[in-house]
Amino acid sequence: MQEIRYFDNAATTIMSRTALDVYQHVASTYIGNPSSLHAEGIKAKEKLEQSREDLAGLLSVAKENLTFTAGASEANAIIFNSLIWKLQKPHVIISNIEHSSTKEYGRLMKQLGWKVTTLDAPGGFIKAEDLRRALTKQTRLVSLMLVNNVVGTIQDIQALVAEVRAYEQEQGGRKIHFHTDATQAFGKIPFSLETLGVDSAAFSAHKFHGPKGVGFLYNRDPAIESLSRGGGQEAGLRPGTENLPGIASMVEAAKESIQKFSEHEKRVKQINTLLRDRLSFLPTISPEKACSPYILNVATNNLPSEVFTRMLYDKGFCVSSGSACSNNAKQKGEGVLESMQIAPSLAKSSIRISFSADTTIEEAEALAEAFTTLIQEHA
Amino acid sequence: MQEIRYFDNAATTIMSRTALDVYQHVASTYIGNPSSLHAEGIKAKEKLEQSREDLAGLLSVAKENLTFTAGASEANAIIFNSLIWKLQKPHVIISNIEHSSTKEYGRLMKQLGWKVTTLDAPGGFIKAEDLRRALTKQTRLVSLMLVNNVVGTIQDIQALVAEVRAYEQEQGGRKIHFHTDATQAFGKIPFSLETLGVDSAAFSAHKFHGPKGVGFLYNRDPAIESLSRGGGQEAGLRPGTENLPGIASMVEAAKESIQKFSEHEKRVKQINTLLRDRLSFLPTISPEKACSPYILNVATNNLPSEVFTRMLYDKGFCVSSGSACSNNAKQKGEGVLESMQIAPSLAKSSIRISFSADTTIEEAEALAEAFTTLIQEHA
Repeated sequence: MQEIRYFDNAATTIMSRTALDVYQHVASTYIGNPSSLHAEGIKAKEKLEQSREDLAGLLSVAKENLTFTAGASEANAIIFNSLIWKLQKPHVIISNIEHSSTKEYGRLMKQLGWKVTTLDAPGGFIKAEDLRRALTKQTRLVSLMLVNNVVGTIQDIQALVAEVRAYEQEQGGRKIHFHTDATQAFGKIPFSLETLGVDSAAFSAHKFHGPKGVGFLYNRDPAIESLSRGGGQEAGLRPGTENLPGIASMVEAAKESIQKFSEHEKRVKQINTLLRDRLSFLPTISPEKACSPYILNVATNNLPSEVFTRMLYDKGFCVSSGSACSNNAKQKGEGVLESMQIAPSLAKSSIRISFSADTTIEEAEALAEAFTTLIQEHA
Repeated sequence: MQEIRYFDNAATTIMSRTALDVYQHVASTYIGNPSSLHAEGIKAKEKLEQSREDLAGLLSVAKENLTFTAGASEANAIIFNSLIWKLQKPHVIISNIEHSSTKEYGRLMKQLGWKVTTLDAPGGFIKAEDLRRALTKQTRLVSLMLVNNVVGTIQDIQALVAEVRAYEQEQGGRKIHFHTDATQAFGKIPFSLETLGVDSAAFSAHKFHGPKGVGFLYNRDPAIESLSRGGGQEAGLRPGTENLPGIASMVEAAKESIQKFSEHEKRVKQINTLLRDRLSFLPTISPEKACSPYILNVATNNLPSEVFTRMLYDKGFCVSSGSACSNNAKQKGEGVLESMQIAPSLAKSSIRISFSADTTIEEAEALAEAFTTLIQEHA
């Protein structure tokens, strides 16, 4: 059997051994429903709240502001659906480089008759002045991602929030909710939710070696109300019996990510530099500055992404031609790259290489080798 | 440490060893995102579709009609939210004995200006003639549960669906969606979705020894469209990276439940009969006929539910004074019992005892003993 070298960690990471052990331990030890009032229920509830407290500690936020969800898509959906529930056709601002779980809400909202402004991101960055110009008296929500999932660019969310706050001041304090999809940020770039100043942020465990089907929403805006209804779990924001083994496992993975942040970052930066260097004969789409070291997007220039990724698969390398999620929707990373004003020939031939805490220098060298050989063969 | 005897399986069951093993195996073996196009993605996608096919086989339905969700609450929400998305203030019929994940939608819909009829269920059963009278030209959704979670009564869904279909015929074929929350039914009572004739049904894995945070929606109505948006997973009905380890684990638990259905049912019926017999000095709320053997609701008559359940907890027994989910919402099973027209003194002192495939005769005997002693002490 061919060895698999996995470079698609922006799509999903492998669940860590420790996270898996915690899942198993919690599933067999904490058997009650956290909403039950008996001994087993109380024990489960305590574990749930301990997990929330631990996660809050890692993020330096209040535990009351954390809601466990089934993933980042659901965390984003809670914020967007809250508008459907509460307000009459407000104005919403998103960007063209958002993940489909945000971008598709833009389409939905337009269909519902709302006004949606979609900002471009030339070179991968949303301009503060574009955001400023887009703000109106009807604006109720701004949702801009922290780290882009296709090229890795890091938005200056703090500055973007400042634009919104300045506009609110001018308007006499009208409140605009600022949400950020931070799925590709956790454990990968240093950030502080408090410093960013966002009202809410979405996260997904399987992007940092936690379990699939678990994530969380950070939210400090009391005006957010859930559209979904149910048993009142998660302070009413997210109904359904809590996935305690998944939550505890996610928090364990989060601890590992944060505790070993510098160690992982150092190696991944080495790997990133190594590949940028070895593939310097190709156009690099991911910028060097303000970019996550965990994502490197390059273009082959003359081979379509789908063709080249398949050639790499045949050699046992897993890379991506876009975001995994956009494969279903038949929109490749191309759409995002177009909005970034990347030349079409580059966009059509772009390859996303994404790393994790587990990626080794040896794997990166093997990828560079395979890349070079294939390009030479098909030049 | 005191031995725990667990009789709250309607709230949640303990994840089976096999289900846990499958979770672990799939999490470490199928590492790709099912939406990724490379070898690991394809392998994960195949496992996902195999799981769907296996589950479809167990239910004798088409695999295209199964959507994996984070649980029954989300499966119910997809159906209810679909109305918000598609239609203008339709009329909806639910019952007063629905689980909070349905009942709370009734409140939401009323707030949104829709018409909602809430049917009573005297003695635990919704009357077909009440449903017939409630149907109007504006009715678009009827959502009635299969097995009640507080007392275990089984609704004659087939007959209720027949009422709706007959009404549709009269009206010239106008389509009313019939949804059933079947969370307490899977592996516990024999049923066929096809025979029931419902358009959709909701299920949750952790009620049949599968993992928490996973469930599924059966839906054969192409008009149902998701409110939530995202990467197009699950044919667009449920966005977000699929929880493959959880899904495969759930399907394993489902297989166990179905394969050992008769064996489990036989023992649980024995246990149920034993407790009915030994507690025959108390009023029994769960009827003998058309009731799940897995739920037995009895009343102490003079001790409030909360007091008596706590006395039992102190002796190591986990039972419930309502549904776990309703504990958060501060509405006990009482509300449901009231709607069933159970006398207030019985409702206030009702205790839900719920069994699983793991419950033993010895545990049941110990519970009967503890019950009797406590009642004698506090008579």
